[in-house]
Amino acid sequence: MDIEKFMELMSENGFFYPSFEIYRSKAEVGGFYDYGPLGVEFKRNVIEKWRRVFIYPYQDLIVEIETPIVMPRIVFEASGHLEHFTDSIVECTKCGRRFRADHLIEEELGKRGISVKTEGLSLEELDELIKKYNIKCPACNGELGNVKPFNLLFQTTIGPYSDNIGYLRPETAQGMFVSFPRVFNLVGRKLPFGIAQIGKVGRNEISPRQGLIRLREFTQMEIEFFFDPENAKCPYLDELDVKLRIIPEKDVAAGVKEPREFRPREVVESGIVPNEWMALFMGLATIYMNELGIPLDHQYFLAKLPEERAHYSAASFDQMVYSERFGWVEVSGHAYRTDYDLSRHAKYSGYDMSVDRRLAIPKETVEARVYPNPQRIREVFGNEMSRVMQALGKADPNWLINELNSRGKAVIDGYTITSDMVFIKEEKRKVHVERFIPHDIEPSFGVDRIIYVALEHAYTEINGKPLLKLPPDLAPIKVAVLPIIRKQEYVSIGRSIYRELSMFGIRAIYDDDGAIGSRYAKYDSIGVPFAITIDDKTPVDNTVTIRDRDTRAQVRVGANGVIRVMEEAISKKLSVNDIARLMGLQVIVRE
Amino acid sequence: MDIEKFMELMSENGFFYPSFEIYRSKAEVGGFYDYGPLGVEFKRNVIEKWRRVFIYPYQDLIVEIETPIVMPRIVFEASGHLEHFTDSIVECTKCGRRFRADHLIEEELGKRGISVKTEGLSLEELDELIKKYNIKCPACNGELGNVKPFNLLFQTTIGPYSDNIGYLRPETAQGMFVSFPRVFNLVGRKLPFGIAQIGKVGRNEISPRQGLIRLREFTQMEIEFFFDPENAKCPYLDELDVKLRIIPEKDVAAGVKEPREFRPREVVESGIVPNEWMALFMGLATIYMNELGIPLDHQYFLAKLPEERAHYSAASFDQMVYSERFGWVEVSGHAYRTDYDLSRHAKYSGYDMSVDRRLAIPKETVEARVYPNPQRIREVFGNEMSRVMQALGKADPNWLINELNSRGKAVIDGYTITSDMVFIKEEKRKVHVERFIPHDIEPSFGVDRIIYVALEHAYTEINGKPLLKLPPDLAPIKVAVLPIIRKQEYVSIGRSIYRELSMFGIRAIYDDDGAIGSRYAKYDSIGVPFAITIDDKTPVDNTVTIRDRDTRAQVRVGANGVIRVMEEAISKKLSVNDIARLMGLQVIVRE
Repeated sequence: MDIEKFMELMSENGFFYPSFEIYRSKAEVGGFYDYGPLGVEFKRNVIEKWRRVFIYPYQDLIVEIETPIVMPRIVFEASGHLEHFTDSIVECTKCGRRFRADHLIEEELGKRGISVKTEGLSLEELDELIKKYNIKCPACNGELGNVKPFNLLFQTTIGPYSDNIGYLRPETAQGMFVSFPRVFNLVGRKLPFGIAQIGKVGRNEISPRQGLIRLREFTQMEIEFFFDPENAKCPYLDELDVKLRIIPEKDVAAGVKEPREFRPREVVESGIVPNEWMALFMGLATIYMNELGIPLDHQYFLAKLPEERAHYSAASFDQMVYSERFGWVEVSGHAYRTDYDLSRHAKYSGYDMSVDRRLAIPKETVEARVYPNPQRIREVFGNEMSRVMQALGKADPNWLINELNSRGKAVIDGYTITSDMVFIKEEKRKVHVERFIPHDIEPSFGVDRIIYVALEHAYTEINGKPLLKLPPDLAPIKVAVLPIIRKQEYVSIGRSIYRELSMFGIRAIYDDDGAIGSRYAKYDSIGVPFAITIDDKTPVDNTVTIRDRDTRAQVRVGANGVIRVMEEAISKKLSVNDIARLMGLQVIVRE
Repeated sequence: MDIEKFMELMSENGFFYPSFEIYRSKAEVGGFYDYGPLGVEFKRNVIEKWRRVFIYPYQDLIVEIETPIVMPRIVFEASGHLEHFTDSIVECTKCGRRFRADHLIEEELGKRGISVKTEGLSLEELDELIKKYNIKCPACNGELGNVKPFNLLFQTTIGPYSDNIGYLRPETAQGMFVSFPRVFNLVGRKLPFGIAQIGKVGRNEISPRQGLIRLREFTQMEIEFFFDPENAKCPYLDELDVKLRIIPEKDVAAGVKEPREFRPREVVESGIVPNEWMALFMGLATIYMNELGIPLDHQYFLAKLPEERAHYSAASFDQMVYSERFGWVEVSGHAYRTDYDLSRHAKYSGYDMSVDRRLAIPKETVEARVYPNPQRIREVFGNEMSRVMQALGKADPNWLINELNSRGKAVIDGYTITSDMVFIKEEKRKVHVERFIPHDIEPSFGVDRIIYVALEHAYTEINGKPLLKLPPDLAPIKVAVLPIIRKQEYVSIGRSIYRELSMFGIRAIYDDDGAIGSRYAKYDSIGVPFAITIDDKTPVDNTVTIRDRDTRAQVRVGANGVIRVMEEAISKKLSVNDIARLMGLQVIVRE
């Protein structure tokens, strides 16, 4: 494929293009992209498709919420992002330019034909590489300073006090963790359940490049799926009709580059994926990509080694999709976040994040109880007896027993208590419920990257002309209404069909400008699956033709019923051949 | 209505609730709200309805785009927000607490029974009020300092250089202005056309209260509609079947509090609204609110006086909706922004924002031209003649003529030119095209306020039980599937109907827990328009009943066709009575 032609098509037709174009020479604003009219529509369809794969079929288990983009500082202290969410940065001591250190090292050594992998290296190790290879500032050849951490959170201030720091969230996830107690109540305090969120996030990249693949502001679709680690059965796993292509952790460690194929249950049974729910979401992610037009051999899951994983993750897989332009691109990440986030928020907020586990077999526990010996206490403390009794009542029995056993005495509120002043009894109790912090599996999707790879995969050429083979349910515009020539009669029929499509909420376009062939080509290139043509027969017998973008086949139907036919075709993903078959009509092929 | 009961219902059922609840005691985070599962769904329906009123019927005129939330500093220098987007703030000299000055004055004087309107007052005037009435800090009774401006933009830094300032946009509008040249190309360089955007914005309020009505982060739906001010005809205005209720500027100035009713064309003809497109959008806004369940007598447009208008606006109307809790609330603003924004961005970016106007009647223009007189120039300048000729060629003819007329000479590149050295000719030219900067009408909607007023209007009580009468197309959940008792046979039929609804993307809920009456009540209270009940007859004749939330009427239909009936009922807004009539069935009323 001609990748330059594709990129030009995307920007010239308003799928996506760099933001703030008029200010490019006046402000450094890399890493921001606009979606034009077609891009917005396509993005919405990509998101709705995700809901149809991940949420709607499981709507009794997974609920969607919306939480703010701006969050207070304490959230990211708790989550660990203030400490861990950094890239390495290095500044030129001469010109002051700043670079992302790991990328700079890989690029500069790459120019010298030296291949180095910097992922997971410490700041000191990066420093050593710079010194060892005498790497200089690529702009002015000046000496580079020490490698430092650079936090990627966009910082701001909330309200009128400058010490009330807030950040743009770098993932939607934290909104789900922070509101866990509320949403857990809303779903009836039952596990497992998932919280989904779709929304904007910000990551203040040091020097973003690669267009939609690395943005400073982008959209995520995430699920935090909470479950009891002692009961992590997923009843839907065997329903999935899909194979997972994975390079497991062992293979990654051994340098194997080829994914292997497994059934979803196999990856759990063989211990490659730690959890049934994680396998479910990886299966759904495969199906989702497939529905977006990514064939199976253009996607696989790559296990992350411990040093490559985010600070919260006990197991991670990146879903990789092949791109002609960017090579293998991570489009979703699947992390086993355990109870890390809820535990941290419990600690930082003081809020109890634990939930009940009803025990099938009640546990027997032994509880120690301490009862005062009034006689002995009166002998020792006389008038102060009642105060000593009160103090004893408040004391933690376990602590008291421990003190008496180890030191022979315990001091409470200034009173020295000895063993003879208390009776200690052990009482057995049956516990039917215990408390635990739920574990969490996170499938996390980058919408913008998905948009890019889906569009790239849809792009093809027929006789040198671009054709965007988007699945009809994802296509931004569903129908082009095209009078074969601009003649008053044709125009008014065309406009009335167009107007009706619009009223029914079907995204359509009307165009009577230029030769019909070049109009077909134009709408093929932006992925419009159907064209309704008003031609010479239309005024005679009130029929129009419907043309199929991919096969160029046409079928002739009554003008009055064409809206209904289009509705059916779009909602049921019918081609023109399907329509002809269902309606008992003949297919015409003209081109 | 019982407003406290309503608010409790909203938060307990997960429509909306304050964000960061677990950190309430650890961080100041007012002005942020979460949407729970029902709220997210409702919000999406409210937004989609907006598209169906404002965009889809006009999709050949109005396109939607998406631009970043974070924008560079220069955008807000150009837009005037850095200068004008401020509230007044005052700090206590004793305890350091900060207050929004105008609100503080109104509240403190209100306590003393003094009514003051602070809108439009200068900082000095606010200072005078504080001194005159000796207003103190309401927290510690300390002396207040001087009133200062406080900018409401959330500030951040883009990339690794701390001087590269960015802000969260306070309106989506600036994204449309900044990308105007690109989108104008995309729509084929034709006026009029509109750019719509739906997205998050941030306003760093000093002390937000009033829940969803005043948030620091909220969602806007805006259209910037660009047109030629010399040709502002709107062909759709007379199609609108709606009356506008307005308090025009004159009435506002005269203190009139009652709106008057007009047809959309009347408000333009009488000069109350400056523009046909503006009247169209105000008409659509009325229809939109009506479709959300706001009756006409609970809405009107309030003209803003010049001193009340934003810095960019030549005419403004606030669409006000009545709220039981908050009084009259602004849900949308309609501003005539003229060419203010595009002109400012042209100036700050150096980018030409003007467009062509083809003139119906070409204009005759007179252009002055200056030709050198070689003989005279040689006489005066000799060898330097050719340099003088060159200098003359570069000079602006109008400037040169002006200099010669006013001073009798002109100095160019050090050469003194006099009238005898040039011939001045006037040449007539026909101009077919002239350049101008398009004007802009902006309808701007606050999604969160709209959500609030729509929910409040939907709330009612029947026999003391809450009923949320949401229009079915807006209801978050469409169908509740309810086996009358939890019996295996009923459960499996119920779950299979539920599963099928889910697969078709119909938002549904399954519930077999508790008495059927209390389940009906529960789903009435969250606005579920239909309940499918599996009862004793279901296993016998394979029928179920469909119950209507508002009338409590039921109709019995075949279990196999119930998905299809639900699809039809939801998409065509049918009630159970409609279904019965269309299918020739009997309505049952049991409750």
